[in-house]
Amino acid sequence: LYVLISLCQSRRFIIEDIITQEALLNGSYSYGPLGMELKKNLITKWWDSMVLSKERVFGIETPQHMIGSLNSEDKTMTLVETEVLRAILRNKNLSMKETIASLEELLKKSAILRSNLLEGAFQLYAKSLNLVNEKLPFGLAEVGVCYQPVATEHETTSSAVRAGEVEVASLVWFSSPRTSGQWRDYWVRQRLLWWRKFARHPSSFTANDFQDENGIKGTALYFSFPWGKEPIETLLSLEEKEVVLKHLGSKSELQGRDGRKTVVPHVLSVSGNLDRGVMAYLTDSLHLSEQIDSKCSCNQKQVLKLHPFLVPIKVALDVGRGSTGELRQVCEGLFRQMLEKRINTWPGYLETAQVSMEQLFTKYDEMGVIFTIVINESTLESGLVQLRNRDTTMKETMHISEVIEFLTKYIQES
Amino acid sequence: LYVLISLCQSRRFIIEDIITQEALLNGSYSYGPLGMELKKNLITKWWDSMVLSKERVFGIETPQHMIGSLNSEDKTMTLVETEVLRAILRNKNLSMKETIASLEELLKKSAILRSNLLEGAFQLYAKSLNLVNEKLPFGLAEVGVCYQPVATEHETTSSAVRAGEVEVASLVWFSSPRTSGQWRDYWVRQRLLWWRKFARHPSSFTANDFQDENGIKGTALYFSFPWGKEPIETLLSLEEKEVVLKHLGSKSELQGRDGRKTVVPHVLSVSGNLDRGVMAYLTDSLHLSEQIDSKCSCNQKQVLKLHPFLVPIKVALDVGRGSTGELRQVCEGLFRQMLEKRINTWPGYLETAQVSMEQLFTKYDEMGVIFTIVINESTLESGLVQLRNRDTTMKETMHISEVIEFLTKYIQES
Repeated sequence: LYVLISLCQSRRFIIEDIITQEALLNGSYSYGPLGMELKKNLITKWWDSMVLSKERVFGIETPQHMIGSLNSEDKTMTLVETEVLRAILRNKNLSMKETIASLEELLKKSAILRSNLLEGAFQLYAKSLNLVNEKLPFGLAEVGVCYQPVATEHETTSSAVRAGEVEVASLVWFSSPRTSGQWRDYWVRQRLLWWRKFARHPSSFTANDFQDENGIKGTALYFSFPWGKEPIETLLSLEEKEVVLKHLGSKSELQGRDGRKTVVPHVLSVSGNLDRGVMAYLTDSLHLSEQIDSKCSCNQKQVLKLHPFLVPIKVALDVGRGSTGELRQVCEGLFRQMLEKRINTWPGYLETAQVSMEQLFTKYDEMGVIFTIVINESTLESGLVQLRNRDTTMKETMHISEVIEFLTKYIQES
Repeated sequence: LYVLISLCQSRRFIIEDIITQEALLNGSYSYGPLGMELKKNLITKWWDSMVLSKERVFGIETPQHMIGSLNSEDKTMTLVETEVLRAILRNKNLSMKETIASLEELLKKSAILRSNLLEGAFQLYAKSLNLVNEKLPFGLAEVGVCYQPVATEHETTSSAVRAGEVEVASLVWFSSPRTSGQWRDYWVRQRLLWWRKFARHPSSFTANDFQDENGIKGTALYFSFPWGKEPIETLLSLEEKEVVLKHLGSKSELQGRDGRKTVVPHVLSVSGNLDRGVMAYLTDSLHLSEQIDSKCSCNQKQVLKLHPFLVPIKVALDVGRGSTGELRQVCEGLFRQMLEKRINTWPGYLETAQVSMEQLFTKYDEMGVIFTIVINESTLESGLVQLRNRDTTMKETMHISEVIEFLTKYIQES
């Protein structure tokens, strides 16, 4: 774990002075360029598999804040305007009783930040029915930030630290009661397969059924972190009773068609924590190996073997020996071509620090870069470049004009 | 304006019972499937032009909430844990004085929600310097939700309504003071060109310099809405003095390299409101025309002529006369092929309502769909399909096996 955290920091996956296990789980940290790109890839893959490949799933986007604060019984965060609040607390003309009354008035009108994406989907459900001609089943998908207060051991901790801000990917699936059991099994299987697809150790992702204190049944998908299993996605089945309760409108608005019958749908909520997903894949991909170098000292080698679809930087472009100006020109040309093909490339040639090739490869292995391309003197003469592979550590020689086609193919086929 | 709003609602760009001009400007509404996809395309284009095409721009992601509420003088929203707040207000054992003291204590420790992305970039600046070997210039890019309290005329309006939640796209560009003026001109030009690139009426986007009450100079980019010009993006120049003020660390941490010299960078903040950008392009793309139909009555025809890069649905797939079952199978096959090529397609064949072809075309024009493909009896015999073009309203006949190649080419070349 310590190795992973220090790697994440030095390679700018996560930028934070101190990262605790708690912070990692609650997603309250800044992503550097690599972490940000990794998360973006994960969201893209989620969207591809949930929305773009399905005829009956529609994307939506709802506001993060909702009206109606103090009536909600759930753990939530309330939002108040700083200036107004300060004005009330500093107003010397108010008696204490008036101050408290003003505060209560303010809070009654305040908004809360959503703690999940289920409510948003419910609000759009009735208005989305006509997209599908009232026919069930169909789903509403959304990716967005939710706020979940974090239970800490020290109740005195500031609420700032305790506001867990997480990126949630949610599918809310409305189906007829007749088929809801089958759909539940279908989605559990689909989701587990999805998480496993990009993993080095697919068996680190597991599923378990549970029943919560309100009797709502569900399945959680877990990832085995070094410190134990943690849920990364939850599938909850809401039956008619709960669906009607959650929905604010009338029951008739809820009804969809199942063949010729009109029914109140059962709802399956599929809700994944993408920040935790990023941590899961980082953990899964870390490969450690002992390595004895030329001076016979023992080093620990760290390679982030992230799946080619997820890896933030596919290719690094660097220069070896030779006239810097000319080599850099070649790099810039190749770099532009890569970008056009949407191959995410690291412009290593911009760094002027002199390091050995071995140090370069170590750095790029830690960044998870799949191929390192080195342009040197001989490239200028023969047009040949070296491609070094992260996983095999083998170097291949190839003509510069073939590189792009080779990379495009490699990424597509993986 | 009224036409646009009702179109947005009926075609599920925006899902909200009542949309006011104020709500449109402040971005507090839900996006339906079309609006969501349009905004996603806009973000993708922004990212492509700002991060992926530039060697010296890096993506980051910072939390929405920040510690240190009541000291900030800006207009912000404070975040408090609902349960804790309620417990304090309902605690009968506390005297009023103690209640107020507890509240002040709670608020002191509370977080605020960011009102822009500049602070986040500043926090990561020093730690990102080593990505570029301390060399200036470079930039940090981020897209994310910000909260800006909205000034309304009625000061008594609930704070919920006044929390403007907007998706901001931000580039923070650090350059040496020597070149900051040139960079400022460069980015103003780039950004104006970018907005104009996707517009039907490029001249609706304009730029104007301004100076704010603190003497900070900047340029705003405006879009001309039916009710007047509104800013959609702001470029602010921060000079050494302000940069040092904004940065919390020591001055030496700030210094980057300009050739052999070490300097405190000037900062250019480029910050666009993407929700307003979506509204701008919807407004820009609405094309109205009078049309006299076969019964000699006069109709107003509405076409959303969105740029092919932005349009949420490129192609609609629908069925004409013929055996429904067989036609649907053909549609499903073509639909899957389109998805594989990442052509966003609307499965119109799923709707069983009987409407005329003209009604279909009207609907898809209002959705901005570029091509409508109709599969009918003759497709089963000859393999020929009809492609109807939104902009020309012409119908082309084509073999079903050529459709995908034609569409891919059309979208790439536009």
